[in-house]
Amino acid sequence: MSAAIGMANTPEPPYYAVIFTSQRTEGDRGYEAVAARMVELAAKQPGFLGVESVRGADGLGITVSYWRDEAAIAAWKSEAEHRQAQAAGRATWYAGFRMRVAKVERAYGEG
Amino acid sequence: MSAAIGMANTPEPPYYAVIFTSQRTEGDRGYEAVAARMVELAAKQPGFLGVESVRGADGLGITVSYWRDEAAIAAWKSEAEHRQAQAAGRATWYAGFRMRVAKVERAYGEG
Repeated sequence: MSAAIGMANTPEPPYYAVIFTSQRTEGDRGYEAVAARMVELAAKQPGFLGVESVRGADGLGITVSYWRDEAAIAAWKSEAEHRQAQAAGRATWYAGFRMRVAKVERAYGEG
Repeated sequence: MSAAIGMANTPEPPYYAVIFTSQRTEGDRGYEAVAARMVELAAKQPGFLGVESVRGADGLGITVSYWRDEAAIAAWKSEAEHRQAQAAGRATWYAGFRMRVAKVERAYGEG
């Protein structure tokens, strides 16, 4: 599966979305390399369905990852390298964040 | 309620998220003014809980709006001025989009 970022082509609902909204601190401090690695790693996890990610010039970012079920989300959350990244995020990269786990009930799109 | 864009301070789940991912066409073509107006208008709708919105330099954008229930989402979808904007979006502003309606089951955050 490609780790390219764009609009995700997910299967028919139901499935799960993890909505991660964050405000970056100033400066890279190793962030970009780890963020790219996390997308690459997430795409290899069982139950991964896709990811969409955008960060604006003001440092606000939204990443939505899509998963088959809650078990897949739990496994990804506890993945060792991802746990290290989560800790660095809290300590260094994010001035604040919101994490929401949601069950996608319906979806449509074009293009 | 403020229509300022940032991280939304939503109530305890459950509530609903509308995840709208889109790829902008080239040029403004009236988009920015209408987008700002839609945020202002959405914030006045019954059951609106907040909105988070980011667009990157490549034209990919994610807007997540939060709602008390499905009835609030349906009412907003059918609001007259919003319907005009949806039509303009499909015809002019978006090369493609994904719309997903999801029930937020759990959430946490910092900052």
